[in-house]
Amino acid sequence: MISCIGFDADDTLWQNETFFRLTEARFIALLGGDPGLTERLHEAEKRNLGHYGFGVKGFMLSMIETAIEATEGQVKASVIAEILAEGREMLRHPIHLLPDVEEVVRALAQDHRVIVITKGDLLDQERKLAQSGLGDLFHGVEIVSDKTPETYARAFARHGAGADHAMMVGNSLKSDVIPALQAGAWGVHIPHELTWSYERADPPTDAPRFRVIQRLAELPDVVNATLTHNR
Amino acid sequence: MISCIGFDADDTLWQNETFFRLTEARFIALLGGDPGLTERLHEAEKRNLGHYGFGVKGFMLSMIETAIEATEGQVKASVIAEILAEGREMLRHPIHLLPDVEEVVRALAQDHRVIVITKGDLLDQERKLAQSGLGDLFHGVEIVSDKTPETYARAFARHGAGADHAMMVGNSLKSDVIPALQAGAWGVHIPHELTWSYERADPPTDAPRFRVIQRLAELPDVVNATLTHNR
Repeated sequence: MISCIGFDADDTLWQNETFFRLTEARFIALLGGDPGLTERLHEAEKRNLGHYGFGVKGFMLSMIETAIEATEGQVKASVIAEILAEGREMLRHPIHLLPDVEEVVRALAQDHRVIVITKGDLLDQERKLAQSGLGDLFHGVEIVSDKTPETYARAFARHGAGADHAMMVGNSLKSDVIPALQAGAWGVHIPHELTWSYERADPPTDAPRFRVIQRLAELPDVVNATLTHNR
Repeated sequence: MISCIGFDADDTLWQNETFFRLTEARFIALLGGDPGLTERLHEAEKRNLGHYGFGVKGFMLSMIETAIEATEGQVKASVIAEILAEGREMLRHPIHLLPDVEEVVRALAQDHRVIVITKGDLLDQERKLAQSGLGDLFHGVEIVSDKTPETYARAFARHGAGADHAMMVGNSLKSDVIPALQAGAWGVHIPHELTWSYERADPPTDAPRFRVIQRLAELPDVVNATLTHNR
């Protein structure tokens, strides 16, 4: 029944938000420690999404903008240089795979087309996939500017038999699960302990193809159970 | 013989480098007018390509880095804020189609799969394509982190009958023509009056599938001529 399984990447296959949080903490320390800066930075990020899209480069630009605004133009160039250095550090940080990822992807790849569908900066996402060592397991990789129902319809048409025969797995209800369900696919939520406020959403109701798992190791059973669904 | 025609986007379908040059000129004026800054900025861009990839966001970050380094850390935050504003202006600048683009793409789309293969920031390239009004004419859009022979082999396998039956058209010998020829496709160079130093390369020699045109309106004849090639 399921021909194609899509995986989100950041915080589904490997850690991501934790590095953003660490960088945020350093950013706040650099600017004197006012915890209210977190909120200002998040507002700048959201305000700039329409210009910058998702990813580390836009985050760097939003940190610089917030540093200038929060200091009313008094921030020193040396602090901006530190922000640039922190961002570049994120862009070369080794990835940390989440538990069970390799085993589960390898097992599911035997009988399904497994693909990655991820937002973010093109080069950075490609780098992380290459570093993960999982690249050869995936039938396709879609790095997209946003995750809408159309994104999933297109990706699952391209790599499988359409959304109706596909499943999307990820840590963001807002980006991974709800739009995939709206496209007609199965949507499996695997919560991560850290989720960026932008990605939060209420769980869907009245969605028979919605599932929640606590560990990725539960996923093969969820996939198998779809075989008897609706019989 | 040709099933798929790939078009580069920036400076092939629409103006791009001219906006980078205008922003560079404003950047240099902001920092006091030293023309040597152009070279420093280009060096920073090239040095950062491995981190940032291509596109406006990386250009913004390289301008900020150059401003800090060239002033030995003395640049004022208000100047950095101006650089951010200039970059955001680039990201919302209306596109200007180059001559003949709509007519030629529309004509070739009748008998071929026409696709876009472009580097740059995902969201920005999607925005420009949407603004161009040409989106519906293209069978596919590939926004890629770099243009290698493998990039073309993959894109032409995905959208056509492989590189052997494909043609790539663009203003960059280095990115559009030479790697496409290496993949086995036809490579058509349409020079643009402004070309970023990074994109310069010597024309290929001993390449029977290499063509040069001066106006895009010449392209349909080049495509038709391939029908009798090798007979």
